[in-house]
Amino acid sequence: MSQTSSHKRPLILITNDDGITAPGITMLATIMKELGDVVVIAPDKPQSGMGHAITINSTLRIQKTNFHNALEEYSCSGTPVDCVKMAVNKILKRKPDLCVSGINHGSNYSINVLYSGTMSAAVEGALESIPSIGFSLCNHDLNANFEPAREYIKNIAQKILKEGLPEGVCLNVNIPDVPREEIKGVKLCRQAKANWIEELDERTDPSGKPYYWLTGKFDNFEKGEPDTDVWALESNFISIVPVQFDMTAYKVMKQLKMLEV
Amino acid sequence: MSQTSSHKRPLILITNDDGITAPGITMLATIMKELGDVVVIAPDKPQSGMGHAITINSTLRIQKTNFHNALEEYSCSGTPVDCVKMAVNKILKRKPDLCVSGINHGSNYSINVLYSGTMSAAVEGALESIPSIGFSLCNHDLNANFEPAREYIKNIAQKILKEGLPEGVCLNVNIPDVPREEIKGVKLCRQAKANWIEELDERTDPSGKPYYWLTGKFDNFEKGEPDTDVWALESNFISIVPVQFDMTAYKVMKQLKMLEV
Repeated sequence: MSQTSSHKRPLILITNDDGITAPGITMLATIMKELGDVVVIAPDKPQSGMGHAITINSTLRIQKTNFHNALEEYSCSGTPVDCVKMAVNKILKRKPDLCVSGINHGSNYSINVLYSGTMSAAVEGALESIPSIGFSLCNHDLNANFEPAREYIKNIAQKILKEGLPEGVCLNVNIPDVPREEIKGVKLCRQAKANWIEELDERTDPSGKPYYWLTGKFDNFEKGEPDTDVWALESNFISIVPVQFDMTAYKVMKQLKMLEV
Repeated sequence: MSQTSSHKRPLILITNDDGITAPGITMLATIMKELGDVVVIAPDKPQSGMGHAITINSTLRIQKTNFHNALEEYSCSGTPVDCVKMAVNKILKRKPDLCVSGINHGSNYSINVLYSGTMSAAVEGALESIPSIGFSLCNHDLNANFEPAREYIKNIAQKILKEGLPEGVCLNVNIPDVPREEIKGVKLCRQAKANWIEELDERTDPSGKPYYWLTGKFDNFEKGEPDTDVWALESNFISIVPVQFDMTAYKVMKQLKMLEV
C-alpha cells in the first residue's frame, strides 16, 4: 500500500509532543484511521513545552516504527515542528488533507498555545497550508481516559476535512476531563488572558550546587468571561480557539507610529 | 551596588538566544548601560531556533558571570524564555522597566518570529507586562558590524522607556546589514506572509546510517508590499513589527461558528 495508491481516501498526518508511544497519539491514530489513510511521525521522546523550537544546531534522525498500524510511521529525534517539516519535505508524497497533533496529555488553553509543542506542530501545519488541528485533554495523567473525547474529535476532524480552514489559521481544541455525558458541547472561543505565577523550585545536587525546577500556577485574568477558552472548559464545554500565526498587533499600529523616523 | 539602591535609573533586563558570549549581546549591553542599570541573564550556549521552548522535563542551572560589567549577570542552562522566567522569578528584585533581547546574529523578520528564541524572550517579557523589544541584525556572521545599528537601538529603547508599550505587545526590530549612511530610517510594519522552502540535507554517518540537516530558502509571498517588514528591510529601512501573544484569529470567528454543537 503506497501513499499514491489510496488517493481517494484523505491523507492524514499525525504528530504530537508527548512522544510516539503516548496513549494520546494512539487514540488519535485510532480515530483518524476511520477517516482516511494515516501517516504518523512523532518525537521519539517527550517534547512537552518545546513551543515552536526547530533543530538547526544539530542533526535529525528518523526511524521506521509500527506502533499504530499506519500507512507509514516514523519516530523522529527532533521537536514536534521538526516532525511536521520532516513529513512535508521528506516523507509525504503529496500534501496531506489534514494534520492533527495530540491528543496531548494535559491542557493547552490560553497562553499555553505559545509553549505547547502540540499546538506548534498544528501552527507549522497551517504555515504549510495544511488544515491543522491540535487536540488536548485536560488531564496530564498517562492513563487519562480519552474515550469521552472520541466522537467529538472525529466530528471536528470530519468537518475540517470537508470544509477546510481559512488560510493562516489552525484550531486549538481542548477537551475537559469529564465523563462523556457531562460534556456540554463545543464552543468557539478566544484565548483567555492569563499568565503563569512561576516558582523556581531550588534544590541542591549531591555536590552541593543549586539547581532549579520550573514550576508554576496558572493565573486566569478573565475569570467568568464566557467567550474565553478557560471559561468554556471550566463549564465542561470543549473549547476551540482558531489560532493564527500572523502575530502582528494591528490594533496598535496607529499608536506606535511615533516610532517611525 | 544593589538593584534597589539605584532605583532612580531604569532597570533593564538583557537576554538573547546566541548565548551570553555572543558579540551581539555585548553591543546591546554597551548601549543599555548608557540608559540604565543592566541585569544580564542569557543562555550558556547558542539557543537559536528554540522558539518559545521552556525546560520542564529537566532541571535548570544558573552561573554568575561577568562578561558585560553589568549590575548582575548570569549564564543559564536553559532557553531564552527560561532566562526571562529565571530573571523575573529568581534574580530581579523588582519588575524591570525594559526587557531587551539580542542583538540577534541574523534576521527575525516575517514568520521567523515564531522560530526565534530572541523574539520569544521578548514575547515572554510582554507576558510579564514588561515593555520588551527583540533586536536582530540581518547578518548571521559572528563578526557582523553592529555599529551602524547603535544609535537607532538606543533611540528606540529610550522611546519605549519613556512611553512604554501597549499591554500584550512587544516589538520585533530588524536592522538591515548596511553602512550607517545607507539606513533610510525606521518603518512600522506588519509581518510579511512567507514560508521556508525546506530541504532535508540527507547524509550518511560513519556506520552507514542516514541523518539529516534542516536547511531552507526563505520564500516571501508578498514581494514589493511596502507595509511588510521584508520590504522595509530590502529597502534599507529598520523594520519594527508590533507583536502580540494573543494568537486568536478573531477575523474568522463568524466563519467557524459551524464548529459549535
